[in-house]
Amino acid sequence: MLPPSLSGRALRALAVLLAAAAMPVGASSDPPARDLRAAVDRMREIGLQEEKAFEFLERITAVGPRLTGSPQADRAVEVGRRIMEELGFDNVRTEPVTVGRWVRGKAAEASVLGPSVVSLAICALGGSVPTPAEGIVAPVVEVRSFEDLARLGPAVKGRIVFYNRPMDRTLLDTFGAYGRAADQRVRGASEASRFGAAAVLVRSLTLRMNDHPHTGLVQYEDGVPRIPAAAVSTAGAERLSGLLRRDPGLRLRLRMDCRTEAPVVSANVVGEITGSEFPKEIVLVGGHLDSWDLGTGAHDNGAGCAVSLEALRLIKAAGLRPRRTIRAVLFMDEEFGGTGGRAYARAPQREGERHIFAAESDRGGFLPIGLAAGGGSREATERIRSFEHLFRPLGILFISPGGGGVDIAPLVEQGTVPAAVILNAQTYFDVHHSALDVLDRVHPRELELQAVILAALAYIVAQEAFSKPDLI
Amino acid sequence: MLPPSLSGRALRALAVLLAAAAMPVGASSDPPARDLRAAVDRMREIGLQEEKAFEFLERITAVGPRLTGSPQADRAVEVGRRIMEELGFDNVRTEPVTVGRWVRGKAAEASVLGPSVVSLAICALGGSVPTPAEGIVAPVVEVRSFEDLARLGPAVKGRIVFYNRPMDRTLLDTFGAYGRAADQRVRGASEASRFGAAAVLVRSLTLRMNDHPHTGLVQYEDGVPRIPAAAVSTAGAERLSGLLRRDPGLRLRLRMDCRTEAPVVSANVVGEITGSEFPKEIVLVGGHLDSWDLGTGAHDNGAGCAVSLEALRLIKAAGLRPRRTIRAVLFMDEEFGGTGGRAYARAPQREGERHIFAAESDRGGFLPIGLAAGGGSREATERIRSFEHLFRPLGILFISPGGGGVDIAPLVEQGTVPAAVILNAQTYFDVHHSALDVLDRVHPRELELQAVILAALAYIVAQEAFSKPDLI
Repeated sequence: MLPPSLSGRALRALAVLLAAAAMPVGASSDPPARDLRAAVDRMREIGLQEEKAFEFLERITAVGPRLTGSPQADRAVEVGRRIMEELGFDNVRTEPVTVGRWVRGKAAEASVLGPSVVSLAICALGGSVPTPAEGIVAPVVEVRSFEDLARLGPAVKGRIVFYNRPMDRTLLDTFGAYGRAADQRVRGASEASRFGAAAVLVRSLTLRMNDHPHTGLVQYEDGVPRIPAAAVSTAGAERLSGLLRRDPGLRLRLRMDCRTEAPVVSANVVGEITGSEFPKEIVLVGGHLDSWDLGTGAHDNGAGCAVSLEALRLIKAAGLRPRRTIRAVLFMDEEFGGTGGRAYARAPQREGERHIFAAESDRGGFLPIGLAAGGGSREATERIRSFEHLFRPLGILFISPGGGGVDIAPLVEQGTVPAAVILNAQTYFDVHHSALDVLDRVHPRELELQAVILAALAYIVAQEAFSKPDLI
Repeated sequence: MLPPSLSGRALRALAVLLAAAAMPVGASSDPPARDLRAAVDRMREIGLQEEKAFEFLERITAVGPRLTGSPQADRAVEVGRRIMEELGFDNVRTEPVTVGRWVRGKAAEASVLGPSVVSLAICALGGSVPTPAEGIVAPVVEVRSFEDLARLGPAVKGRIVFYNRPMDRTLLDTFGAYGRAADQRVRGASEASRFGAAAVLVRSLTLRMNDHPHTGLVQYEDGVPRIPAAAVSTAGAERLSGLLRRDPGLRLRLRMDCRTEAPVVSANVVGEITGSEFPKEIVLVGGHLDSWDLGTGAHDNGAGCAVSLEALRLIKAAGLRPRRTIRAVLFMDEEFGGTGGRAYARAPQREGERHIFAAESDRGGFLPIGLAAGGGSREATERIRSFEHLFRPLGILFISPGGGGVDIAPLVEQGTVPAAVILNAQTYFDVHHSALDVLDRVHPRELELQAVILAALAYIVAQEAFSKPDLI
């Protein structure tokens, strides 16, 4: 069944995709369909032997944290461009993106005031307003849900609302567990502010119990006063909850000096292997260059950039020349809302291009176990499934509907078929948005497997899956 | 197709297994078949919430390295028994096993003698004879295979044979890559000794390039002089190979003071949940308590013991009472050849028992992705597959033929249906048999998932899959 959002352009792209299945291979010098297996084998051998994705990841994370709008993000743009140039990609360039700039500042302190002062490990949430310079001192009220909050209503006025609903650790689907808890972080500040709360403290979104706070975006609703928003570590959340049981009237002192500065111009980084037959038909692979700033964004999402770069390198190293253009895009500013993805989709360079397929890698650098492809289109998923025999030897154990992500969403709205490599996600939220998201948490071989699968997917689609003769 | 080794007893067990598929559920107070899903859900919830497998692993590895025949192995037997008693298992006991005792000693040194002395990171292979106290000084000859060795023949006399064939890193099947390189370690000493070699140095069996040597068993052939056998780290192997290219005549000094002592009596640890209807029909889960001694055997195979203990705990914690007996066995001495598994199979306690199913966990504590079950019997595999809908929500992405392992091999020869949970093996050989195999390389959640799957597998089989009325 097609999702209601699929436009007429999407339906045409899909028709083209399906028609291609019956098309004879053209009079091309490229390997015919029967050589796809040999191509995939060769890329697997080169990839697992050389493990270059990890080298690219080392160079990207060596820049440090790459918060949108920061000088390090600019340096990462340069590193990305340099790697593409060194690898001999075609048409390497940056495309400008105007992004917001939020600065964490130096102070992020929370102390429970009582017979003895208890410090909690916190961090400002991305986009948060600061507290006054002297901090906020207020009583704390713990809630588990917006329903709890609504029941309290005006009783939270002047208080710090403490959202303490854990991720459900009994779910195998950790992204699902994250999704079911993330509303506290994303919308919690405005929801509490409606009732006059002074600030919010949100339990970190992780399954581990430790003292690392996990940051992430807070979204303020227009017309609602903006109040400071911080994440507290899971161990800190448990401690605070215990103290509140003993003394419901306890007060917390919260101080943060984060701030929002004027927007700056940053960039997406783009490079490609130009298609030999249909250069204007684009198969896109990409990740995001920006990161949160507590760690160095190794899994989120240096990994996605590294595997996108490595996918194109593998195709070239295997001596393959795709019929359609395979493009790597390192997007800027996924974390603050996807301005890079939107800028890419509407850039003047898109004129005359047709994006037939886009794989976004934003699930870290863990073991690949499956593919999601086709978005809501069963036919598109089935088309990718017809190549399942090529993915099985790469460790792909299922091909399901879905795919997509923040950065390619604007393309998908225009009819591009989305995909994503599905990874082991059991440990992703251990590191996600925290100081633990650093290079040594990524395994070179597991990372490389993702690059190999991405290279195979992009190459197969570029050779076989799509055609749009009226664009040629 | 049945493997040729399947005996008449095996065929009878299989017939019983298949007959059970059509059997109505008996007049039992236990949950009927339709409640299996609820039972599995409950065990998943308890397991993922509590993650107790990791606590058991902490206690087992806290003993230290558990080399067969060592005092620590004896302490591990006590720890295993104590955990079973604390958990309220039935009929907790140890069963004696007479095992060999090899002692690593203090010295394991290898130096390349030349203009400057270059030290290599080595360790004695398990079971190796020592060098003379003053060491061996001899020229080195590098080979990649036994064919290379045979070509050299008597030319290796008096030399140290250096086996330097790497594991094939382009294979996704790392166990397969290990299997294709392990002959050098297991048989290399005797093969070289036939031609008069003085000692052997074997490249460590790992895909990583570093300075950690990986130990493992050497098997000396009867009637061939026993020569010292050591493993050299992969980085050391590369270095030695480079030095040999420049100076093929270089000499190596090798010194090791390992030794074999008199056999000692150790034990398997056994505990169970007695079956409510068929107490003499046994569903076995197990791992091995002994380990190599460079690390603390966290993955190999504290993990297998921990998940076996946790599987039974989960069944009890979920309030389930299996119709058949579910037994956990912590085997002694897998690493030196499986004396514990053989002793278990022929112990007097086996009289009157029928082992219908045995799952051996000896693949570490990584993410579970599949099940191997049924050994060579397609019918047995299909019977387990008929419950695939119960395993899917636990992350099991395939159910394939196979299963089994060193410790349950004697049971399987007698007709027991084998199984094993298949795990992500991309990083296993990073740590396998090395100093890196320690607790912090195991993730509590990934480990727990294996325990949950094992609990589900054992419980389903105990309720549903088999029956042998003439034993009641």
